[in-house]
Amino acid sequence: MSTQNIAARPSTESLPSSMRASVLQGPGELVVEERPVPEPGAGQVLVRILAVGVCGSDTHYYEHGRIGDFVVDKPLVLGHEPSGRIVAVGTGVDPARVGQRVSLEPGIPEPFSAETLAGRYNLDPAVRFFATPPVDGVFSEYAVHPAAFCHPVPEEVSDEAAALLEPLSVGIAAVRAGQVKLGSRVLVAGAGPIGLLAAACADRAGATDVVVTDVREERLQLALRYGATEVFTSQDARDPTDPFPGSGYDVFVDATGVEPAVLSGLQRLAPAGRAVLVGMGMDTLALPVPLVQNRQLEITGTFRYANTWPIAVRLAASGVIDLDGLVTSRHDLDDVATALTIGRTPGALKAVVRP
Amino acid sequence: MSTQNIAARPSTESLPSSMRASVLQGPGELVVEERPVPEPGAGQVLVRILAVGVCGSDTHYYEHGRIGDFVVDKPLVLGHEPSGRIVAVGTGVDPARVGQRVSLEPGIPEPFSAETLAGRYNLDPAVRFFATPPVDGVFSEYAVHPAAFCHPVPEEVSDEAAALLEPLSVGIAAVRAGQVKLGSRVLVAGAGPIGLLAAACADRAGATDVVVTDVREERLQLALRYGATEVFTSQDARDPTDPFPGSGYDVFVDATGVEPAVLSGLQRLAPAGRAVLVGMGMDTLALPVPLVQNRQLEITGTFRYANTWPIAVRLAASGVIDLDGLVTSRHDLDDVATALTIGRTPGALKAVVRP
Amino acid sequence: MSTQNIAARPSTESLPSSMRASVLQGPGELVVEERPVPEPGAGQVLVRILAVGVCGSDTHYYEHGRIGDFVVDKPLVLGHEPSGRIVAVGTGVDPARVGQRVSLEPGIPEPFSAETLAGRYNLDPAVRFFATPPVDGVFSEYAVHPAAFCHPVPEEVSDEAAALLEPLSVGIAAVRAGQVKLGSRVLVAGAGPIGLLAAACADRAGATDVVVTDVREERLQLALRYGATEVFTSQDARDPTDPFPGSGYDVFVDATGVEPAVLSGLQRLAPAGRAVLVGMGMDTLALPVPLVQNRQLEITGTFRYANTWPIAVRLAASGVIDLDGLVTSRHDLDDVATALTIGRTPGALKAVVRP
Amino acid sequence: MSTQNIAARPSTESLPSSMRASVLQGPGELVVEERPVPEPGAGQVLVRILAVGVCGSDTHYYEHGRIGDFVVDKPLVLGHEPSGRIVAVGTGVDPARVGQRVSLEPGIPEPFSAETLAGRYNLDPAVRFFATPPVDGVFSEYAVHPAAFCHPVPEEVSDEAAALLEPLSVGIAAVRAGQVKLGSRVLVAGAGPIGLLAAACADRAGATDVVVTDVREERLQLALRYGATEVFTSQDARDPTDPFPGSGYDVFVDATGVEPAVLSGLQRLAPAGRAVLVGMGMDTLALPVPLVQNRQLEITGTFRYANTWPIAVRLAASGVIDLDGLVTSRHDLDDVATALTIGRTPGALKAVVRP
Repeated sequence: MSTQNIAARPSTESLPSSMRASVLQGPGELVVEERPVPEPGAGQVLVRILAVGVCGSDTHYYEHGRIGDFVVDKPLVLGHEPSGRIVAVGTGVDPARVGQRVSLEPGIPEPFSAETLAGRYNLDPAVRFFATPPVDGVFSEYAVHPAAFCHPVPEEVSDEAAALLEPLSVGIAAVRAGQVKLGSRVLVAGAGPIGLLAAACADRAGATDVVVTDVREERLQLALRYGATEVFTSQDARDPTDPFPGSGYDVFVDATGVEPAVLSGLQRLAPAGRAVLVGMGMDTLALPVPLVQNRQLEITGTFRYANTWPIAVRLAASGVIDLDGLVTSRHDLDDVATALTIGRTPGALKAVVRP
Repeated sequence: MSTQNIAARPSTESLPSSMRASVLQGPGELVVEERPVPEPGAGQVLVRILAVGVCGSDTHYYEHGRIGDFVVDKPLVLGHEPSGRIVAVGTGVDPARVGQRVSLEPGIPEPFSAETLAGRYNLDPAVRFFATPPVDGVFSEYAVHPAAFCHPVPEEVSDEAAALLEPLSVGIAAVRAGQVKLGSRVLVAGAGPIGLLAAACADRAGATDVVVTDVREERLQLALRYGATEVFTSQDARDPTDPFPGSGYDVFVDATGVEPAVLSGLQRLAPAGRAVLVGMGMDTLALPVPLVQNRQLEITGTFRYANTWPIAVRLAASGVIDLDGLVTSRHDLDDVATALTIGRTPGALKAVVRP
Repeated sequence: MSTQNIAARPSTESLPSSMRASVLQGPGELVVEERPVPEPGAGQVLVRILAVGVCGSDTHYYEHGRIGDFVVDKPLVLGHEPSGRIVAVGTGVDPARVGQRVSLEPGIPEPFSAETLAGRYNLDPAVRFFATPPVDGVFSEYAVHPAAFCHPVPEEVSDEAAALLEPLSVGIAAVRAGQVKLGSRVLVAGAGPIGLLAAACADRAGATDVVVTDVREERLQLALRYGATEVFTSQDARDPTDPFPGSGYDVFVDATGVEPAVLSGLQRLAPAGRAVLVGMGMDTLALPVPLVQNRQLEITGTFRYANTWPIAVRLAASGVIDLDGLVTSRHDLDDVATALTIGRTPGALKAVVRP
Repeated sequence: MSTQNIAARPSTESLPSSMRASVLQGPGELVVEERPVPEPGAGQVLVRILAVGVCGSDTHYYEHGRIGDFVVDKPLVLGHEPSGRIVAVGTGVDPARVGQRVSLEPGIPEPFSAETLAGRYNLDPAVRFFATPPVDGVFSEYAVHPAAFCHPVPEEVSDEAAALLEPLSVGIAAVRAGQVKLGSRVLVAGAGPIGLLAAACADRAGATDVVVTDVREERLQLALRYGATEVFTSQDARDPTDPFPGSGYDVFVDATGVEPAVLSGLQRLAPAGRAVLVGMGMDTLALPVPLVQNRQLEITGTFRYANTWPIAVRLAASGVIDLDGLVTSRHDLDDVATALTIGRTPGALKAVVRP
């Protein structure tokens, strides 16, 4: 392999031997602990964490101690949307990378698994993902990670924007799964961070119509800054008879996870339209089969993302999508509990932890 | 248009002025009537009907007088899977086509509609389809039809096989919607005519595994002659816990229209697998959303077919798919009621009406 | 068909019986003639022409009397990029369309040909196209055209912009053929109207890098207003060693028709990159086969466009692509010869004829 | 990673410490040497080589000492189409794999390179490929290889067929690049092993017409056993006016590498047809640009293959494609020179080395 002859590893003597980490001991129980600073192995780097976005799944683990089959049965560090600076490299990694500011892609697949070789490494069953039991996340001062999954960011991208390449990747994945293209008419249900970024990506991917719906008026005002060409205040997203505007959409992206919103969206798809289920929370959806058949709709869902980071870096660097504008609060390691729960406060959109 | 200067129409003097047609007067009420033989208009041909396959939707109209929003509120001729011989042509049609044996594609779209121009003419809302109210079908001695939708068949294709290019087209459409390709592993639920033809098309399209399930043992034996590499007798297709064999299928084709069978099939899809809902009868499907998301499944349905006939002709002519082998009974125009109901008899698969 | 029962045709009495048309009698010979105003047939409309863009192919017919196998062997009206206002409708067309301002899509396929039904109506060999012998174009006061190919434009789109939906369609087709998507890195060779519009469409379709090259410095300045993120002044586009910038492009669009420019572009494609040959003028290209194989490049070309107008209307209405900014001169019917030759003047980009 | 906890490595005491290998010292100079049996590293296995197919590129290295930029500047073991039996495993590999019969996929990419993660690992510039300088091939008694690239084969697949999954993979890649699907009409130029296997794969992938052309009558007879529905004896493949049969092909696969044959094939493509350049030997091809544009053809080439082995195993196991039937001679390690040159003998098709 091309890098195997790079044996040198820069001295890490100036690095501390221990670091602080926010550890989830059980539902609702967060403790800041001192832990040893990990050492980067072959192909890995050690990163000083600069910013970590807070995601709904972090909150869910914090409050419920589990998500589906993933159970927090021993102490776990949460946080999976990090940016940082490389401070040391393992064998096989170019030492010149020390000092580089990077965005960390959180999921690492088995290198030569069938799904990885097929270009769908996010679907590899052996993937190891930050803050998904038993893998620790990055609400901590340092973390080790494979060099290939630490993506350099240019100066134009702030530390916080570099962290938010993760939700941007979710938006990119949604738009790809929806096959949004030049001239598409797109409907997005839900104007939280993911809905906003999906709208922004749809706009950037050539959609001529990007209609965003939500029950929260103030979020829809924000949507107009994130690519929406039109917004609609739903009276109640749980009411399938609630008249979302228009019809004939080529693509519907659900970022609510609420069944009536999905049913409303499906009804408004044009023939051969595609629906992308991004929002989580539904166990089942009462899919209207004759509609799917008569219009030859395609329904799919996204699971994280693959091959999005290089694009996310370029999009963020171009300034077209304002990631910094999503951040509504900042927190230190002692304040992670607040960061995890502030999302329900009116006006809150995205909290960031800065270790 | 290239053919508009062909003004001559061969004499139709030898044709009778009236013909017999089996007319549905109301649910369960069929009457054979004398009707005038229609004249082909511009771009049309007059066809002497040779064979007409009987489809479940014909039976449904016969028994219930409606399918969904399509209501038989005035007398209707059923039958939409016809073959025939051209006996006269309208203006603009090459007179040399008189005498040609043809398979009639039953749905005629608006020429320049958005869906037609996009290559999805089956989804054009203005499509006129044999035996769908208020358009008469072809349980009759003659019919007129646009020349472009009367596809010539070579000698190797029997009259009955030419009629059965219609269900073969449904199978082709299923395999296309499923994106079956060289090396695909395919699961087909249901071994009726559509399931068998979908299996045969999947096999022909390169699937290395074609597993067919049904509750009827004798149909599964037939499936082994229609491309199945393995068959499985389900104890009860309505039981979602019924252990269909295997997992890791790339494509699942449902030809049952029964929810538990679909749910079983979805569970057995590989990451990024596709499910094609062909079978009719479900109003809703309790779609397992986390499964769709975690495996990035794609679910779609088919509505009839588009651009299948030329391929269907070549497949039938090659002899690889034995359409004649599906025919289990033959009926004349006075016997249409039997033809429409014989399908429930054990051993019956496909009835054909020969006017 | 859904509109067949609309029999009424509004009175055309207020229309003149004759009109002026600029007729090409032979190479370099244009004469303005009086001709009868045509009557719209079934499914057609009569349009008062408002603006017609001038294209290089018009100029080529004017100067050489032929393009390849298409020979002007009898008098021909040139012009194929028209906008206009509907002033009368034929049978089967909604009379309410009278008064509508429209952009005319110039190529009309055979309705039910194989290519039309497959969604590629531009490839139908029987297509009839304005200003392509023997079909007259629209350097005239009136023209008849199928209603379905007269696309309504909203007020935000000027008469001239409505005419220029034709070259915009070429740009859309290029971007589609190149499969430009969110995050693509695109190289465009040539900054004439087509190159500029291809760049603008690539930008709009999500390209994060749009590099445009040309030998004409002033056109490259314009390119920065049409989506280019970077421009490069080539010293000589005929010199394949001329160092175009960068490498690793996902898509290369050639809008020069000059072999060395194409060869330079191919060299700069990333693995699995796509090259779209839009520029005309090369008989053959010395394709570097090992490069195509080792990088698995895909090379294709575009022939006009299909299914672009509805998208072009929306793009123009959104104001994102400044079509009006391309117009550098306006001409009346007596001045068509100038309109056809002014393109070589420095600073000239797009001439428009206003009958 | 899922296998990291498997530390045990079965004893290799029963293995010899040295092995025989056929080493190319310079053009035309082959010497059988004793070399140490290599030890499998982490994630690798040691394989006892059972059969190795001989490929034209082996012959080219043998005769010319180079292929393009790849120069044999130090001793090299040729041979890259091996099958074998696992006799030892490195750390992290399931010891139960010892004894398994496998087909070795010869190219190993960098695990987390951009191309690998995108599912195109064959295009990774750092790929290491058997018998491509400086990587030794497998005309030897043993070889080490990553476990993930040693694909188990079932009993139905002979040792020699297991070796020939490599050329079968080339055929699969050709058919994929051509997007052959149910109903495709395919033209294959050249009936050598690759042409035959491309034809067989096209047939299996649903092509209803598979026309194969060659100048060698006897090979065309063989083609009829490998999927050809029609064959045509070209008088001279170097003569572009030589009338290949038919037209309207959806896909053209070139397995000759001869320019006139490619030009003939391109001319016979239907609108939107695809050409796949598999045959090597052309530096440039005089691509007819107007043809590419007017018919919107797509031209591409293949470079080896990716993600083909699991499919190749299933195809071979199904018995549909007779790989054993390609073998026309067998050779031991002392006879490699003959194996490398026998291909030009009339009647010779595929030589196999059995170490």
